Amino acid sequence: MQAIKLAQNNLQIQKAHPIPQPEAGEALIKVTVAGICATDLEMIKGYKSGFQGILGHEFVGVVEQAPDSAWLGKRVVGSINIGCNNCATCRQQGAEHCPNRRVLGIHNKDGAFADYLTLPQSNLFVVPDDVADETAVFTEPLAAALRIREQIRLIPGSKTAVLGPGRLGILVGQVLALDGTDVIMIGRSRRSLALPQKLGLATSLTEEFAENSFDTVVETTGNEAGFALALKLIRPLGTLVLKSTFAGQSNLDLTKLVVAEINVVGSRCGPFAPALTLLQRHAVDVTSLIDGEYNFSHAIQAFTHASQHGVRKILLRP
Amino acid sequence: MQAIKLAQNNLQIQKAHPIPQPEAGEALIKVTVAGICATDLEMIKGYKSGFQGILGHEFVGVVEQAPDSAWLGKRVVGSINIGCNNCATCRQQGAEHCPNRRVLGIHNKDGAFADYLTLPQSNLFVVPDDVADETAVFTEPLAAALRIREQIRLIPGSKTAVLGPGRLGILVGQVLALDGTDVIMIGRSRRSLALPQKLGLATSLTEEFAENSFDTVVETTGNEAGFALALKLIRPLGTLVLKSTFAGQSNLDLTKLVVAEINVVGSRCGPFAPALTLLQRHAVDVTSLIDGEYNFSHAIQAFTHASQHGVRKILLRP
Repeated sequence: MQAIKLAQNNLQIQKAHPIPQPEAGEALIKVTVAGICATDLEMIKGYKSGFQGILGHEFVGVVEQAPDSAWLGKRVVGSINIGCNNCATCRQQGAEHCPNRRVLGIHNKDGAFADYLTLPQSNLFVVPDDVADETAVFTEPLAAALRIREQIRLIPGSKTAVLGPGRLGILVGQVLALDGTDVIMIGRSRRSLALPQKLGLATSLTEEFAENSFDTVVETTGNEAGFALALKLIRPLGTLVLKSTFAGQSNLDLTKLVVAEINVVGSRCGPFAPALTLLQRHAVDVTSLIDGEYNFSHAIQAFTHASQHGVRKILLRP
Repeated sequence: MQAIKLAQNNLQIQKAHPIPQPEAGEALIKVTVAGICATDLEMIKGYKSGFQGILGHEFVGVVEQAPDSAWLGKRVVGSINIGCNNCATCRQQGAEHCPNRRVLGIHNKDGAFADYLTLPQSNLFVVPDDVADETAVFTEPLAAALRIREQIRLIPGSKTAVLGPGRLGILVGQVLALDGTDVIMIGRSRRSLALPQKLGLATSLTEEFAENSFDTVVETTGNEAGFALALKLIRPLGTLVLKSTFAGQSNLDLTKLVVAEINVVGSRCGPFAPALTLLQRHAVDVTSLIDGEYNFSHAIQAFTHASQHGVRKILLRP
């Protein structure tokens, strides 16, 4: 099969990679479409450079083999963390933080940029018939945005800023605005704010707010300037959600965290079922984020495109 | 009166400083005893160098003038934040985070290292007769330790580490262990752990734990190595309490905050009334922390002593 592989930080397009063999409990899934995420781009640049294997963790596919025949032929998405099912963390908190976990396309588990992937049947979610592939492929990042609502309360009347109107930030902005919360997407250029504006989100340039202006700030840029801006904008006793990892060390003045008693919440993977429900209800616009589609054979061009400034979602197809 | 003043980062012992005049709503308090805190030492080193005035914010004194005569002659301690009483923060969250606040001996308000200080009557708390001055002077730092219990839940059976067996850390350790929580004081040398051991706290050297060993970690060292150790020891989904400010920039790898979804809680000033209750009940040993006492006239020696490695509380008297 075709497979897009990371080996010593080099991207390889393999034409004749062996089809993966499902382990006990796993399904074999034929990939229909996959999405490129910021994490993929970071990994190519060397972040988590330990990973050697097939990239990709956002996908839609069709089940071709499964322990339970009820899954055969189903169109599915899949959560990306595979726990050991044998430790206290798996038993108490689920697979997401299992110290022995494998993560699809990220850690010890070949991913979705290939004709086939395998995943435990228990990681799969059926995609409703009326949700198109190009919509369902956003389930994983939308779930990551929804994770914030599992972690913090958004108090009615409070003010929330989302820093970074990128592929993840716009999903976060839409999810947080669902119940009428006062959400402002903040970006560095008017051009970057055009899409969130079109989607009905309030927007603002980075320089328009005084310090301590927001009750909640969600940082999605993953860069030091974004974190510094988040620290400036958050009010005393406010909540700062970190939604993007920072590659390497960060040189930040953390005094305000203590003096202003800020609550910082790291946030990663989220719940698939409510994400699929939101997509089915058209409560969140995801397809406007698509800036391009490529076949696996043109993956190099796809990654180049995805890494350009201001580009949001790039899809890959077999 | 005598007063220990900070002027352009220089410490001055003034013999004939004018006695402060109470403003509207303020009491005039004759200082009996005061304590040197890490914040005082940081300020002398240049942190918050904007402050020019009399240092000191931990004190016990006797009310000599007050708008309400019921306060006259009372032995008191006082909370250190003075809000404007006129902004949304004061109305909703109290004076601690008022953007216009003055802070006793720290920001725009002369402090307690003097024969007299003034504070709003509403900041004062009567010291119970059976609590000695040398005990009551710990009310402010003990309240700061109790602040943690206002901010986070300690779940029975969970494991908590307190990093830094210093003047604040030992109060934090005692306060968190009150209800039987499994608390371990972690320090860099066996010598630093002798006192917490004597006080009945479990102790350990820094190198004795694997990563992800604790549900809750409280960082009281205020140095980068302490923060890095806290990040190592905290488990995924755990709570990391920052109890000490870091002077200047910190160069830290914050990736784990996001990937392991850590909750970071900045923590500063706390409630005086329950602190006084704990002191009255002898629930916390504070006087064992006292390593020396000096008169104001020997303040330079007192600060030199207080800044030595391993020294905990130094008291000052008129």
